[in-house]
Amino acid sequence: MSMSNKYPGNDPAINVDEVARAAERLKPWANRTPVLTSRTLDARVGGSVYLKCENFQRIGAFKFRGAMNALLLLSETERSAGVVTHSSGNHAQALALAGRLLGVPVCVVMPRTAPTVKRAATEGYGARVVLCEPTLAAREEAVAKEVADHGYTVVHPFDNWSVIAGQGTVAWELLEEVGPLDVVVSPVGGGGLLAGTTLAVKGKSAVTRVVGVEPEAADDARRSMATGTIQPSGDPKTIADGLRTSLGERPFTVIRSGVDAIVTASEAEIVDAMRFVWERLKIIIEPSSAVTLAPILTRKLAVEGLRVGVIIGGGNVDLEPFFQALAVKWL
Amino acid sequence: MSMSNKYPGNDPAINVDEVARAAERLKPWANRTPVLTSRTLDARVGGSVYLKCENFQRIGAFKFRGAMNALLLLSETERSAGVVTHSSGNHAQALALAGRLLGVPVCVVMPRTAPTVKRAATEGYGARVVLCEPTLAAREEAVAKEVADHGYTVVHPFDNWSVIAGQGTVAWELLEEVGPLDVVVSPVGGGGLLAGTTLAVKGKSAVTRVVGVEPEAADDARRSMATGTIQPSGDPKTIADGLRTSLGERPFTVIRSGVDAIVTASEAEIVDAMRFVWERLKIIIEPSSAVTLAPILTRKLAVEGLRVGVIIGGGNVDLEPFFQALAVKWL
Repeated sequence: MSMSNKYPGNDPAINVDEVARAAERLKPWANRTPVLTSRTLDARVGGSVYLKCENFQRIGAFKFRGAMNALLLLSETERSAGVVTHSSGNHAQALALAGRLLGVPVCVVMPRTAPTVKRAATEGYGARVVLCEPTLAAREEAVAKEVADHGYTVVHPFDNWSVIAGQGTVAWELLEEVGPLDVVVSPVGGGGLLAGTTLAVKGKSAVTRVVGVEPEAADDARRSMATGTIQPSGDPKTIADGLRTSLGERPFTVIRSGVDAIVTASEAEIVDAMRFVWERLKIIIEPSSAVTLAPILTRKLAVEGLRVGVIIGGGNVDLEPFFQALAVKWL
Repeated sequence: MSMSNKYPGNDPAINVDEVARAAERLKPWANRTPVLTSRTLDARVGGSVYLKCENFQRIGAFKFRGAMNALLLLSETERSAGVVTHSSGNHAQALALAGRLLGVPVCVVMPRTAPTVKRAATEGYGARVVLCEPTLAAREEAVAKEVADHGYTVVHPFDNWSVIAGQGTVAWELLEEVGPLDVVVSPVGGGGLLAGTTLAVKGKSAVTRVVGVEPEAADDARRSMATGTIQPSGDPKTIADGLRTSLGERPFTVIRSGVDAIVTASEAEIVDAMRFVWERLKIIIEPSSAVTLAPILTRKLAVEGLRVGVIIGGGNVDLEPFFQALAVKWL
């Protein structure tokens, strides 16, 4: 891993000041999530690890920050007209809750193959869900139609500067709370969180390294960094469902110039890391969040003697199988 | 529920001062566990709920406090000779870790029917495990033999004043952190935690009510309070494995005089409460801890407009079935 400070580049349309403003803007709305430490974890890896726990964020994931920041930055006219996005994951519920809190109509385009529980949760926050065929073309067509019919503003899950600035407030709060760090580790899927993290970290402390982690099976960020152009990820099979998407253009302009390294984790390493956290730290994190701890636990990312920030993005996991089994045994 | 302050009685051999001293004594050793709050939980029950999270305690449960306090109070001679206890649960690991930290030899008598994973965990902390037949007589005989052979001091899991004082530091810290509360809710099995909680809470704030919760299927505390004498619980079938035991004599002297009410929770209510916490609060709590939240969620214990402290005793749950299923699907 290089120690050089490759950031700030000149490409991004925003910088750390926009993250700082987002942090202020979100204060009345987002949870200031706790930073957890663990003797067991530190003893195992030989460093001091600070877990910024966005699984305790509203809707159970960091996505609330970006969605809320985007809505707070809309004009009155835009807020009245409403917003549309496409997502079957945490961004859908994040935008739905943000819209409910601000009285902004929210429409979410979801593939008809999305789990009914995700649809119900999004509708539970008052959003209107529009189903489409599970193809990129069908999704874009559905979003375009909603925009044409209702005058909605599109709030992309990650390829949006307001969203990126909002996600950057996670690392901003982490540094505010624990002080200087040697390295900050973030998962990378579409790149919104990693880009926001990079803006926040490099803007506050140029010598702190930023590392992105992704599943081996969805290593588009690694390949994109190596080639200098976005390499799409196809339809990767990974338990880390939040990280299956390809890098967005706006996140990539930040990541390309500011991130020090991208490392990957195998499916087995992701599951092992998730189990370690559930069993030893007693918090529920989703596979897309376990990804960040995996290379630290396997020592692929060496942290001996270092102060390491790790972003735990969320804790939304389907627990039905576990409680089904409990019910069968006890009820 | 009565508002009267029935405590302090004259029976207990210790009072709140001993809890305060235990809190000071444990500072270098025990985690000061976080107090969590949840908008979702508060909105659902209409009160302000403060969860004192001992699932984040060392060995994953409050039992470390009592075991450690007991060992710290031994004389040098007693420490050199070592200690013995009987437990197949959290107390076994708690005493084993406390012994390792202080260099005190620890022997744990376990029924030979105890899960091998519990035995391995206890031995992992360096304790010597002695197996016996799963009967009260066999257990007492095994403990007596160890005492006779090695000169061990017995550290009972709950019928021991040093242990009770140690468990009382949970509520002590809670009140220190969040200030006055209307009611504090604790689980009750052998009674060590509830007795310690009662000493701490009534000693600090006589008007604060103390409520104990136990499974309907193991309602020995309710029956003991009603009759004024300890009513054993037989071999109750409940998912709350930490609460199957009957009340101890020492805890009962405190509980009888100081606790305002004992309420019960059905197995389905316990599982529902556990699922609510895992899904919405993203922390792993064991069934014996979910018990305390069950009557609050069902409104059997009304908390509208109240400030409520809830003791989450631990988070040691067998996650093997969940991760087995994940591995089958993804690895």
